[in-house]
Amino acid sequence: MTTKQDAGQAVLDAKTRLGLTWAQLAEALDAPLAWTTSALLGQHPIGKSRAEKAAQILELGPAEVAAFEAQPTRGALDDVVPTDPTIYRFYEVLQVYGPTIKELIHEKFGDGIMSAINFKIDVDRREDPGGERVVVTLDGKYLKYQWG
Amino acid sequence: MTTKQDAGQAVLDAKTRLGLTWAQLAEALDAPLAWTTSALLGQHPIGKSRAEKAAQILELGPAEVAAFEAQPTRGALDDVVPTDPTIYRFYEVLQVYGPTIKELIHEKFGDGIMSAINFKIDVDRREDPGGERVVVTLDGKYLKYQWG
Amino acid sequence: MTTKQDAGQAVLDAKTRLGLTWAQLAEALDAPLAWTTSALLGQHPIGKSRAEKAAQILELGPAEVAAFEAQPTRGALDDVVPTDPTIYRFYEVLQVYGPTIKELIHEKFGDGIMSAINFKIDVDRREDPGGERVVVTLDGKYLKYQWG
Amino acid sequence: MTTKQDAGQAVLDAKTRLGLTWAQLAEALDAPLAWTTSALLGQHPIGKSRAEKAAQILELGPAEVAAFEAQPTRGALDDVVPTDPTIYRFYEVLQVYGPTIKELIHEKFGDGIMSAINFKIDVDRREDPGGERVVVTLDGKYLKYQWG
Amino acid sequence: MTTKQDAGQAVLDAKTRLGLTWAQLAEALDAPLAWTTSALLGQHPIGKSRAEKAAQILELGPAEVAAFEAQPTRGALDDVVPTDPTIYRFYEVLQVYGPTIKELIHEKFGDGIMSAINFKIDVDRREDPGGERVVVTLDGKYLKYQWG
Amino acid sequence: MTTKQDAGQAVLDAKTRLGLTWAQLAEALDAPLAWTTSALLGQHPIGKSRAEKAAQILELGPAEVAAFEAQPTRGALDDVVPTDPTIYRFYEVLQVYGPTIKELIHEKFGDGIMSAINFKIDVDRREDPGGERVVVTLDGKYLKYQWG
Amino acid sequence: MTTKQDAGQAVLDAKTRLGLTWAQLAEALDAPLAWTTSALLGQHPIGKSRAEKAAQILELGPAEVAAFEAQPTRGALDDVVPTDPTIYRFYEVLQVYGPTIKELIHEKFGDGIMSAINFKIDVDRREDPGGERVVVTLDGKYLKYQWG
Amino acid sequence: MTTKQDAGQAVLDAKTRLGLTWAQLAEALDAPLAWTTSALLGQHPIGKSRAEKAAQILELGPAEVAAFEAQPTRGALDDVVPTDPTIYRFYEVLQVYGPTIKELIHEKFGDGIMSAINFKIDVDRREDPGGERVVVTLDGKYLKYQWG
Amino acid sequence: MTTKQDAGQAVLDAKTRLGLTWAQLAEALDAPLAWTTSALLGQHPIGKSRAEKAAQILELGPAEVAAFEAQPTRGALDDVVPTDPTIYRFYEVLQVYGPTIKELIHEKFGDGIMSAINFKIDVDRREDPGGERVVVTLDGKYLKYQWG
Amino acid sequence: MTTKQDAGQAVLDAKTRLGLTWAQLAEALDAPLAWTTSALLGQHPIGKSRAEKAAQILELGPAEVAAFEAQPTRGALDDVVPTDPTIYRFYEVLQVYGPTIKELIHEKFGDGIMSAINFKIDVDRREDPGGERVVVTLDGKYLKYQWG
Repeated sequence: MTTKQDAGQAVLDAKTRLGLTWAQLAEALDAPLAWTTSALLGQHPIGKSRAEKAAQILELGPAEVAAFEAQPTRGALDDVVPTDPTIYRFYEVLQVYGPTIKELIHEKFGDGIMSAINFKIDVDRREDPGGERVVVTLDGKYLKYQWG
Repeated sequence: MTTKQDAGQAVLDAKTRLGLTWAQLAEALDAPLAWTTSALLGQHPIGKSRAEKAAQILELGPAEVAAFEAQPTRGALDDVVPTDPTIYRFYEVLQVYGPTIKELIHEKFGDGIMSAINFKIDVDRREDPGGERVVVTLDGKYLKYQWG
Repeated sequence: MTTKQDAGQAVLDAKTRLGLTWAQLAEALDAPLAWTTSALLGQHPIGKSRAEKAAQILELGPAEVAAFEAQPTRGALDDVVPTDPTIYRFYEVLQVYGPTIKELIHEKFGDGIMSAINFKIDVDRREDPGGERVVVTLDGKYLKYQWG
Repeated sequence: MTTKQDAGQAVLDAKTRLGLTWAQLAEALDAPLAWTTSALLGQHPIGKSRAEKAAQILELGPAEVAAFEAQPTRGALDDVVPTDPTIYRFYEVLQVYGPTIKELIHEKFGDGIMSAINFKIDVDRREDPGGERVVVTLDGKYLKYQWG
Repeated sequence: MTTKQDAGQAVLDAKTRLGLTWAQLAEALDAPLAWTTSALLGQHPIGKSRAEKAAQILELGPAEVAAFEAQPTRGALDDVVPTDPTIYRFYEVLQVYGPTIKELIHEKFGDGIMSAINFKIDVDRREDPGGERVVVTLDGKYLKYQWG
Repeated sequence: MTTKQDAGQAVLDAKTRLGLTWAQLAEALDAPLAWTTSALLGQHPIGKSRAEKAAQILELGPAEVAAFEAQPTRGALDDVVPTDPTIYRFYEVLQVYGPTIKELIHEKFGDGIMSAINFKIDVDRREDPGGERVVVTLDGKYLKYQWG
Repeated sequence: MTTKQDAGQAVLDAKTRLGLTWAQLAEALDAPLAWTTSALLGQHPIGKSRAEKAAQILELGPAEVAAFEAQPTRGALDDVVPTDPTIYRFYEVLQVYGPTIKELIHEKFGDGIMSAINFKIDVDRREDPGGERVVVTLDGKYLKYQWG
Repeated sequence: MTTKQDAGQAVLDAKTRLGLTWAQLAEALDAPLAWTTSALLGQHPIGKSRAEKAAQILELGPAEVAAFEAQPTRGALDDVVPTDPTIYRFYEVLQVYGPTIKELIHEKFGDGIMSAINFKIDVDRREDPGGERVVVTLDGKYLKYQWG
Repeated sequence: MTTKQDAGQAVLDAKTRLGLTWAQLAEALDAPLAWTTSALLGQHPIGKSRAEKAAQILELGPAEVAAFEAQPTRGALDDVVPTDPTIYRFYEVLQVYGPTIKELIHEKFGDGIMSAINFKIDVDRREDPGGERVVVTLDGKYLKYQWG
Repeated sequence: MTTKQDAGQAVLDAKTRLGLTWAQLAEALDAPLAWTTSALLGQHPIGKSRAEKAAQILELGPAEVAAFEAQPTRGALDDVVPTDPTIYRFYEVLQVYGPTIKELIHEKFGDGIMSAINFKIDVDRREDPGGERVVVTLDGKYLKYQWG
């Protein structure tokens, strides 16, 4: 049985071997870039036609197609606190700015949350005189605490 | 001795008592909204004149001014994994999309990270036919892995 | 400063001293029973008039009213795994039936979750020939995974 | 040796390959839906005839039958705090409403617990003007603290 | 407010000061020895007349009576793995014999558990040629796994 | 190399396949029931003749005999806090009654412990009008704290 | 109420203030050096006459005497892995040589343990051409695994 | 690749199969007993001639010789707190006597530590009227805190 | 009783209030900069004359002098993994380069360690065309693994 | 698929088999010593020509070349707190001197950090009358906290 993790590893290997980018894969699947990346890494189920399309481009087989379609058990971090510096910085942002985000959501919206389900994320590059910048946009539906 | 945590709690109390908003505080300090919020909550040192201005608006005393100016030991989460749902959703985003963010930073920039030091954050509200949305923008300088 | 935890403890003390029940408090506030209980224990903000009503019944003062109105940082368990047997059984249910709940939500609804924000809970008593039973109903809006 | 976990994985694979639903499996075994799901996932032992029936429908062999019949060591979560969002929401419910459930059990029943052994669970779908809702019902015998 | 923990500490102090034993306290309350000990240490609620009787013998006041009567949040270990050697040995027994106990309960009774709610415990002393022995008896109702 | 864990698993498989009980195995080895169970599960070394006898009855080979004889590294729980409900109840007993056991050992014996080395355990069944009961007896030598 | 920890701290303060050594205290109590140290630090109960003698020398009062006599809940490390370097080295010894000690106890004695209850410890100083050495001797009764 | 752990396991197997003792192995290598044991278990690198000698006696091959010679990453405990009772007792000694050892090192030597690097350990057997005793001697160079 | 932590906090407050720098304090004590800082923060004992000198400059009293002189229980991090970004980066260095440091110590010196006891540390500033740099130098005596 | 960890292990094996040093490998790759070591151990991606050069010297194949080139998920410690003594001493330095480093960075530079990305490390050997010393130099760009 090929798990979604196995399939994600196969995607990384094939992508390197074939010299493909996530942007090319997203375009081929006609899907948003970050969704494509996370789905191929195993965090979302992929519809049949896109799963087959992805397997074709990446020269993978039916086992990977089945894994792409499967419902994931989500959660991609090896450790509760991530050790990889590129990922850790986002945990650090949460340590430093978590209560700030909470205060501002409450001030601008009321008692509620940003949905992580009805949600999209983007990673962009912005040129700046002080050097290029990584801009990550988290965009989720506001969900108000509401009893029933 | 008034710690930065004590001062942050005093800010929250005074803010409620006086009916002030973070937006009003930010305007009075002539500083960005999220910076103002996190600084008054104790995650950044505040320069002398702004510290005094904040204390005046919030009707706080010299002990709080001194605490505002002090260098923080940063880190605002009570638990390694936050339990408050409004904050937890951002940890969940990291669990689901952490490796995706890493892949896209590497694809768009190379081997490096988004700085969490040369960094700003914004929490915005966006109207949408499907309901209003929380948009959190993380904007940090790209730092390339570079040996010395 | 009276925290929401302090106020929750004051509620428990006053409730015992005055011989009140959660049901009486809920009726007096004209609010659902479980909402009333969790709100008075500090897990929800309470609107001004209900906060004042609750304080009056429980013979508490303005400090508790202010605490009732304050925005909570939610999360009520002392330990990551609760030790109290009455609470632990629900963690055990999660250990034994968590993946079952997940499978059935996916089968009956698709890829998504039960909201814990647009959500209500009830604790009921059901007579049964085999002995009375505790029936806890969790009722949350279905949220479908949806990109933006 | 085929473990109950191996057998549970084989069930998931076969179910997808054969296009079966948990509802169909439950009907074929003439057993409650959630019991069937959790038992086939390895959290309950299955009686001989049902184990053989399940293996027949799922086109599995005697190794899986033996695993179905075996006594489980229960506990299905990979982590003490689950990372999958569909499962996590139930942990969040426990964080926010755990003490509320405890208070109401004590008020309605006395000093005791809801059994997680003499217990059944249901996952239902309820239509609602505000959108369809997930309704999870936990129904366990009340057990009173009693000395011997 | 006197918590059950405070009251438990007050019991220990008074017991030493007055030279009382748990056996004397149990006799005075006309209750089992281990129940009396655990209840006075804060792990069980105590009925009004016994609570008052205990306070009288221990020369404690109404605050302790109220704490004795209160519903506990149970769980008495400071650490997940206890460090005190007298208590640790029982954790060690669980590490070495836990699966053995499980096997024998299943062999002698079927798929179920020993209740820790309908339960009593005794600590006895047995003379033996090889030296006196501690005999701890755990006696709980058998609860069979049963669906609803 | 067959580890004691491997051998324990082989025992469980063979026992089921051959329809043997722990009681039959204990009788065949002429050894106490709980000792036999824990030793075959890998928590005690087994003498040569008994190891061979066990292998013969269970139709196992010389690799299992060697594993039975080997000195164990003891400790059988997968997690620091066990998740299986049948085992967890004993951890819960420790959480609720740990300090009680400690108090009563000190009152009945003095400053010391119950040995978990010079120790035996029994799991019995007791009929009771209120339903059958599991009786677990822990019987260990009293060891007094003594300097040298 | 003065706890054994409070009393231990009072001992450390008084010892410094009065310029006393552990050796002088041990001599005054006519007790072994390491026992005296650990007992005054709160890890052992102290008999009445020695408790009073210690309080007299250290110029402490009846509250400390009572605390010295009280039964301890043992365990002196703040963290599961100690951070203080002087203490950590002994944890490191356990990490590097733990299985070696186990092998040699089994080879020299059989299946059993070194008692930590019938036990004494010494810390000595040995001159050596390569520099003075710390010699810590752990001396505990051998306890053989023995069933009942 | 044979790791030092694999080689250590191979040593244990061969030692049992060939009926050798650690004492015989130490004598054959002309090395201290505890050093030999810990080195063969993978906690020290072994010089070429001894590594070959050990492999010859234990009838192991060049892969084990290479593993014996390799530099270890030290640390032999499976868990932060060891579960095996024979090893746990030494952790318990640290919990009960850690601060005592620290006090006595400081009193006898000054501010410093016992080295765990320039260090030797011995496990001995001492006959005693009260029963044979395990004597473990830790002997490390005193290292004084000294700035540069 | 003033602990070393209390005294360290008093140092930080006085230092800010009086506008002193660590460099000025180090000069006044005629001691290395990093030693002075860590000693005043409570990680080293300070000799009598320096302790008095420090108290005089910082306008502190005899309680702080006594705390300065006291033997510390070392370990300054609030969490096992530090959350403050300035400190975290050094933990990250350990995560990324720990095995590299180990390999190079073994290659350049042999099987041994860098002492953290006979040790000094410096934090320097180095100008560089690419921007100023923090240079932290760890300088400890090489200690060779050596048996007794 | 050969992971970077597999490749790192292959490097260690080949290096020993061929009698190569890190210094020789660094020279052959014309790269800094510590960078070479950490990159070959899997903590940095290696450019194509150097990856091929390394594989040639170490007699490794195309799978290792691909692994050398791959983007790492960084973090090399098996445990949150490292157990190997050579590595642990650096964690101990952080426990004892972490806040000191933080204070001195803030005093010498202002509110900011030492980058661990624009960073180099060196491990050197310094002869000293008191014995040879390990000198580890951490050299990272100063990054000032700056809002956007």
